[in-house]
Amino acid sequence: MSHDCSFLTDVVPEDRVSFGDAARDSHAADWAADEAGTGVTPDAVVFPESTADVSAVLEAANDRGVPVTPYAAGTSLEGNAVPEYAGISLDMNRMNSVLAVRPDDFQIDVQPGVMGDEIDDAVASEGLFFPPLPSSGDISTIGGMIANDASGMQTVKYGEIADWVLELEAVLADGSVVEAGSKAVKTSSGYNLKDILIGSEGTLGVVTRATLELEGIPQQIRGGRAIFPTLDDAAEAVFDAVRSGVDVAKIELVDGISATMANDYLGTDLPDAPMVFLEFHANHGIGEEIDFCRSIFESHDVDRFEMADEEEMDELWQARRELAFALQTWDPERGPIHPGDITVPISKLPEVIRYAKDLGEEHDIVVPCFGHAGDGNVHYTAMVDRSDPDELAAGQEIYKKVVEKAIEMGGTCTGEHGVGRGKREYLELEHGADSVEAMRNLKRALDPRDTLNPGKIFPETATGERVQLEADDD
Amino acid sequence: MSHDCSFLTDVVPEDRVSFGDAARDSHAADWAADEAGTGVTPDAVVFPESTADVSAVLEAANDRGVPVTPYAAGTSLEGNAVPEYAGISLDMNRMNSVLAVRPDDFQIDVQPGVMGDEIDDAVASEGLFFPPLPSSGDISTIGGMIANDASGMQTVKYGEIADWVLELEAVLADGSVVEAGSKAVKTSSGYNLKDILIGSEGTLGVVTRATLELEGIPQQIRGGRAIFPTLDDAAEAVFDAVRSGVDVAKIELVDGISATMANDYLGTDLPDAPMVFLEFHANHGIGEEIDFCRSIFESHDVDRFEMADEEEMDELWQARRELAFALQTWDPERGPIHPGDITVPISKLPEVIRYAKDLGEEHDIVVPCFGHAGDGNVHYTAMVDRSDPDELAAGQEIYKKVVEKAIEMGGTCTGEHGVGRGKREYLELEHGADSVEAMRNLKRALDPRDTLNPGKIFPETATGERVQLEADDD
Repeated sequence: MSHDCSFLTDVVPEDRVSFGDAARDSHAADWAADEAGTGVTPDAVVFPESTADVSAVLEAANDRGVPVTPYAAGTSLEGNAVPEYAGISLDMNRMNSVLAVRPDDFQIDVQPGVMGDEIDDAVASEGLFFPPLPSSGDISTIGGMIANDASGMQTVKYGEIADWVLELEAVLADGSVVEAGSKAVKTSSGYNLKDILIGSEGTLGVVTRATLELEGIPQQIRGGRAIFPTLDDAAEAVFDAVRSGVDVAKIELVDGISATMANDYLGTDLPDAPMVFLEFHANHGIGEEIDFCRSIFESHDVDRFEMADEEEMDELWQARRELAFALQTWDPERGPIHPGDITVPISKLPEVIRYAKDLGEEHDIVVPCFGHAGDGNVHYTAMVDRSDPDELAAGQEIYKKVVEKAIEMGGTCTGEHGVGRGKREYLELEHGADSVEAMRNLKRALDPRDTLNPGKIFPETATGERVQLEADDD
Repeated sequence: MSHDCSFLTDVVPEDRVSFGDAARDSHAADWAADEAGTGVTPDAVVFPESTADVSAVLEAANDRGVPVTPYAAGTSLEGNAVPEYAGISLDMNRMNSVLAVRPDDFQIDVQPGVMGDEIDDAVASEGLFFPPLPSSGDISTIGGMIANDASGMQTVKYGEIADWVLELEAVLADGSVVEAGSKAVKTSSGYNLKDILIGSEGTLGVVTRATLELEGIPQQIRGGRAIFPTLDDAAEAVFDAVRSGVDVAKIELVDGISATMANDYLGTDLPDAPMVFLEFHANHGIGEEIDFCRSIFESHDVDRFEMADEEEMDELWQARRELAFALQTWDPERGPIHPGDITVPISKLPEVIRYAKDLGEEHDIVVPCFGHAGDGNVHYTAMVDRSDPDELAAGQEIYKKVVEKAIEMGGTCTGEHGVGRGKREYLELEHGADSVEAMRNLKRALDPRDTLNPGKIFPETATGERVQLEADDD
């Protein structure tokens, strides 16, 4: 599985290549570092500093049949960015400049290694912000977000990353450099290369520059929380609010056990009860909108509906953001089976949460549920003792059944973390054989030698063979 | 160029096939019926009534090397839907059912032949509407809008068609049926087949079902108009309003000559002056938003800024919608050279309009300009006497130069009408050779025999050869 990568120092300066164990080992797993998040150690790590570097590496690797797996922050959690077949890990973190801000056009040009919060920092003085950042915006790169079509807490109001990317520069497997999209806010010119690159998890191209759209910071921002007697009440309340058209910028569901875990991890004193965290954005009438939401929540037996000041809200959002870490440390004997997410049509949200919780009760396994509920998005896991094979198997069964239920409901096996290695087995169930074959044809068209991030997304790559590898001498 | 299509009655019932001159001739040109909008007469017209019909026709045609060009309302105006190489015109108008409305999820499932206004009619009783309809929504099908990634007056607030399509069923060139997208509002599962089909103008697949997202009808809707001393003031005012974040649902620019033409055509009494038509949508504070817009317009010397009642607004919007027809009939000796559009970053809007007008003055040719100015979109043409070769050439030169200017400004050669036949020559200028080659690779991947709508979008198809046609006996 290892590849001769000595050619790299011929195509880029030596200080951009590492063959050392430390660099290579640190690119073999993502933040999850579980079954899905652990790949194999690459043969070399390249740190390109320009589009020309990326192009040179890809052209040379493609000629030699050497896999190239783009890597950035490693926060996608499905193993999207770790090598399946060794070769080169292409670490994009040195390409981390903000290239231009055009406030008159609500646009910013960035390199892929720019962190999410750096985008907001670069445009705040213009009264602008980048709405679709994921919760991990301060530890994730924009290139990774684009590769995964990430989304976040504010997606319920503003949409996902794809909705805010106007134009991309990307390097294809053969080293050719394409421009996709337009700096005009709309276009119907040619095929939409931009949106086939977005979400392709580095299997079709490597983004080297992005023009993003921005939004004006709203004049009114208010946050709060609502506490419900049961998780079902909370889920029904979220559904009803969305169905009724409440204009909410964040609407996050956290179940009682997740709140307990957050308290233990952060020392907060959230009630150990199902909660909905809220944020409203408006230029006019935010009070009326909050009252509208309150009236809907009251019809679902809300115990408390409290608007909070900024400091209190910071604490709430921190608790929400760090839930993934809280899960890891809560029980010394039991850890989360996998940090996954699914998304369903909003009308199915209460049902899919009930389904997950019922499965947990049936197997006597804790199943924390939380997420961007206004999008129908649920993050969930199963807390298991990995040294107990029966418990591990039961946890895996629960995890799998919830994914299958989401697909059966017309939803998706992954709302925002991509397919990577972790969700490959569900691709055909969700999309059907003909659609997966069409996807594979697109991969063959843009990367016929399977150079870019081989082994990801498509199911049969799990067999250990690169999908479309041609002979090296063709 | 003609193809033997007698096989058709073997694959679909006879009442769904026509070889008659009337049917064939009516599918040879679109509404523009000019150079771009006139193709060749197809050998047969098929009126499929189901996905199975579409699949059977495509599979059989693909096997035989017979081109298939999907047709619906013919309102795209760049020749997108007319045959370049005869073969089959696939008329989608019989597949015109609303299949399901799911108000709780803000979703509707439709067949491709459903007209735009029928979508609004089907969901109005639920308090919902479909925001991105083009101005021609009452004479255009949703399938055509998807094929073109159309957009309209409300795109400035709500986005384009692509932003409101959740899931598609489409038949590929070989007859296989794919599902693309998800009924969940977000997904990062697999490649985005949906957005590569949207805007592909029937060259990659034929949409047979779409799940669309809907929006709640706003509680406050108010319209009005603003009259400016010069077109430059009007364009600068629109730019400033957008840059300042005015929350406007429609913001349409109409130049003085276009207003005159509308008056002549409709008998209205619009001032013969540069105007901006406006509509605001809100649930709270619409008055404040209108005042905000007014204050910005006043800083650009607006002569009058008037809110109108519903009846007055109906008249204004009718004038705006029918401008394309007004242009056709205004001058008995001169007609529009082509009904095209370009889109630029909003900061370039005033400059591109000045550029077009200056070119008109230089050549003493009337150049009407209007459009969805809040998106940086400009519809323009040149009024020429086609019997005068010099005037015709001058008009064509003006038309071409404005397209090139838009591209130079980082904009697009076509904001909403697609490439079709009319904009093929600009594809490479806009996207670059490597990007066009990547697009061509996608076409080869999904339609290797160039069965679907051959001759469109890509530049060299204008030479009279199908791009990727393989031998019939392979």
